[in-house]
Amino acid sequence: MDRRRGGRKSRSVAAIARQPDYRQLRHPFSQQSVFSDETIAAIHDKALRVLEELGMKILHSEARELLQSAGALVDSDTHMVRIGRDIVQAALTTAPKSFQMRGANPARYQQYEPGAMLFAAGAGCPNATDLTRGRRPGSLRDLEEITKLVQSFDVLHMFGPNVEPQDVPSNLRHYATLKTQLAYGDKLMFVYARGRAQAMESFELIRLALDLSDADFDSAVWASTVINTNSPRQIDIPMAEGIIDFARANQLSIITPFCLAGAMAPVSIAGALVLQHAEALAAITLAQVTRAGAPVSYGGFGSNVDMKSGSPAFGTPSHMQMTIGSGQLARHIGLPWRSAAGSASNANDMQAAGENHMGLWAAMMGHATLTVHAAGWLEGGLTFGYEKFINDVEALQTLAELCPQLPQDDDSLAWDAISDVQPGGHFFDTAHTMSRFSTAFYAPLVADLRNHGTWEESGAVHSAERATKIWQQRLAQYTPPPTAADACDRIAAYIESHTKAGGAAPVGG
Amino acid sequence: MDRRRGGRKSRSVAAIARQPDYRQLRHPFSQQSVFSDETIAAIHDKALRVLEELGMKILHSEARELLQSAGALVDSDTHMVRIGRDIVQAALTTAPKSFQMRGANPARYQQYEPGAMLFAAGAGCPNATDLTRGRRPGSLRDLEEITKLVQSFDVLHMFGPNVEPQDVPSNLRHYATLKTQLAYGDKLMFVYARGRAQAMESFELIRLALDLSDADFDSAVWASTVINTNSPRQIDIPMAEGIIDFARANQLSIITPFCLAGAMAPVSIAGALVLQHAEALAAITLAQVTRAGAPVSYGGFGSNVDMKSGSPAFGTPSHMQMTIGSGQLARHIGLPWRSAAGSASNANDMQAAGENHMGLWAAMMGHATLTVHAAGWLEGGLTFGYEKFINDVEALQTLAELCPQLPQDDDSLAWDAISDVQPGGHFFDTAHTMSRFSTAFYAPLVADLRNHGTWEESGAVHSAERATKIWQQRLAQYTPPPTAADACDRIAAYIESHTKAGGAAPVGG
Repeated sequence: MDRRRGGRKSRSVAAIARQPDYRQLRHPFSQQSVFSDETIAAIHDKALRVLEELGMKILHSEARELLQSAGALVDSDTHMVRIGRDIVQAALTTAPKSFQMRGANPARYQQYEPGAMLFAAGAGCPNATDLTRGRRPGSLRDLEEITKLVQSFDVLHMFGPNVEPQDVPSNLRHYATLKTQLAYGDKLMFVYARGRAQAMESFELIRLALDLSDADFDSAVWASTVINTNSPRQIDIPMAEGIIDFARANQLSIITPFCLAGAMAPVSIAGALVLQHAEALAAITLAQVTRAGAPVSYGGFGSNVDMKSGSPAFGTPSHMQMTIGSGQLARHIGLPWRSAAGSASNANDMQAAGENHMGLWAAMMGHATLTVHAAGWLEGGLTFGYEKFINDVEALQTLAELCPQLPQDDDSLAWDAISDVQPGGHFFDTAHTMSRFSTAFYAPLVADLRNHGTWEESGAVHSAERATKIWQQRLAQYTPPPTAADACDRIAAYIESHTKAGGAAPVGG
Repeated sequence: MDRRRGGRKSRSVAAIARQPDYRQLRHPFSQQSVFSDETIAAIHDKALRVLEELGMKILHSEARELLQSAGALVDSDTHMVRIGRDIVQAALTTAPKSFQMRGANPARYQQYEPGAMLFAAGAGCPNATDLTRGRRPGSLRDLEEITKLVQSFDVLHMFGPNVEPQDVPSNLRHYATLKTQLAYGDKLMFVYARGRAQAMESFELIRLALDLSDADFDSAVWASTVINTNSPRQIDIPMAEGIIDFARANQLSIITPFCLAGAMAPVSIAGALVLQHAEALAAITLAQVTRAGAPVSYGGFGSNVDMKSGSPAFGTPSHMQMTIGSGQLARHIGLPWRSAAGSASNANDMQAAGENHMGLWAAMMGHATLTVHAAGWLEGGLTFGYEKFINDVEALQTLAELCPQLPQDDDSLAWDAISDVQPGGHFFDTAHTMSRFSTAFYAPLVADLRNHGTWEESGAVHSAERATKIWQQRLAQYTPPPTAADACDRIAAYIESHTKAGGAAPVGG
């Protein structure tokens, strides 16, 4: 039995036999540090001083009032809010350390807590690109396709607003984005914080779609949003309102200052983290004074400015250090936290892959609970790339494969097999191999391991071009989850009537 | 001051101001595990049983005699050698835990020990490829160019036989490969173990080139070789002779079983590691019974067979698990160890980048002392790729940037800068930024972070094509190290006379 025949023979068997489960992952490695514990304590203390002595500018009046009621000092002219450390400390006491995130499918519920490892695809991209149709403004069709693709890979745990459906009017867009998630998937759902009206309607749609009572909806986390502070030291109207609305509804705010060292944050990593931490603590505090116990995620998306272009850089040493440092700060305050990977590359090239891998590994080292932009994020988030998405899923699946414990039993030590095979022989047809071969190894999604001659004869297709076929196949083979039809039925009338009534305009920053 | 101007302004300053030192690196993260300590102890014990009860087939008579003298049981018909655990244990006692590796330039000496982090470029490739000249059999010109490129990046610490110079007759090839390292570089040197005559001549060339007395040469490590066992359980003539010759000369044998799970090794990771460990221990023991205290490196290059093609896979979960498990075994016996990254891809694509990144991170997690094939290794080692090399160096430099401790002083926490910048402002022109900006961040080698429009207008050049210009520039700007001229002068007569005398034929397996 030669190597090549052995491979061929087992091909179809393996595809059927191996059913890895990537739905609930736990970090396989121990959390790493880039700062000493003393420095982390100093960063935390300095962030508290920022809130106490310098304050945050909060543009939303209700948010200022809520913080004032909790004891914060508000300057009604400048809208500066100074938050004492006692108020922050109380908020950190009520912020839950662990909570369940739910969606249409109980098999995909996630415990959001330190040690859990969730991935989400690239999000917030105004454009989409693939090798067949080129680069274009994001459309509802793109969002639908990407949602189907996200649904088809278990290693992606949440939906996100992957591309902005620019062809849907902004007052109706929240209906489209939510319906897309319900019609094409059964994973954890995302709702944009673009004002109270849209948030409330989105919550109602989820409640209707999943046939939940008000109490059901209120008692668990069915939706999450991302809250970006306006670094430095500012929270704008839609973001502040989002924090309040999601907290009141017991839904999740994922707090994400975007602190670019040397631009909107100090140039030093420690200094940028002081600012990020202060802003995140302010937002967490606002959530907790709104409703004690409201689910919040600590988070950050920090990196550096590229010295050559002035653009945000990703996958750089500074990005990784900020990520691992963020993980230390999250551990310091005991909260789960969100990180981000991603790439600044303009193409499906080695830069694009390299930057994303570095960001993913930083998230691994920093024990990120959730890593956003983990697949498909090109041009620093300006474009969602279909082929990049497929190649990044390969990386995510590779990491997910490291999560389960390896077999460590005596049989896995293979004494009999080693005894049976003579020097210079091979293990292809030992009983030990035969009984395990079809399930032993991860089957690559897009990697092509054939030799150069065979690869060249078959057209010398690069990994980006191979990925085109893969996403096309996935879309062709896509079937909606069992929950989809009922969910869509349940929200059809609501969307129709509210659309007729003019929808709900987003609130500007 | 806008972002873009800020970037441009600091560009030339930064290029001059920032002088990172990648020459001596230490692992920045703590070593990780994929097996429990009990399982590692069981793997070690099972490997000792393999050597004791099953034995190794050793094709070299002197090696058998050396082991027999140390108490091993030799079957003179089958050439099977059974090595008692007391002999192995004695060898592990005398094998040095730390030693200095030297070369032409003392600034590049390396302490080879647990915790150190060395990288070497792809090695042993029969072919070379680049985007201007295509794929071709490796030549002396390729080896010379690659040696110049390796010399020009400090993050690569050792020379290796990057490509096989197939245009040089095999009886003269060791002169050419050694002269190339001395004429174009001043880093740690490699010598192939292709029989005693070549090894002895190579040692003599190094001694002459660096003007060392016999005692000088014998008292330190000036050359290393890679010893591949013939898995399963066999050591062939050139490899056994290499172990003996390098040990006698106090030079370094880097022991590297290539245990492909499901092919030449058991299909289970634990089982493959039992075999790898047994073979490595046998080779280490042969070195130590030859000369107690001879420098040896534990090592392994383990991965799995791809189920679709039957080819060796790299950067897969199994590759990573074997790497991290190898690190645990090295820690168990207290020796420094060699790992490998690399890619099976046939092209400069996202697969190529992804596989190498995964291998590099496994080496980081496993605290590999030396990671070979860390740059430029395509097609599972059949081809050295110039553009892949440049892109991989970006990854290595990114990892190297994580090694120094981040500033943790009070000034780095940037209180004054945060106080000075008002909400909604920016940090571009604060004194804190201005005084640090030119040296704060890693300057990418090949990554292009410009926006999509600018990138497209300038030709939409992918990272592989950008890399072509970079290696061409590096070769154009190359200047030999100060040691080169004298070293070449000192060996010229020796090479000339020995070439006239017919050189030295390699010993076959």
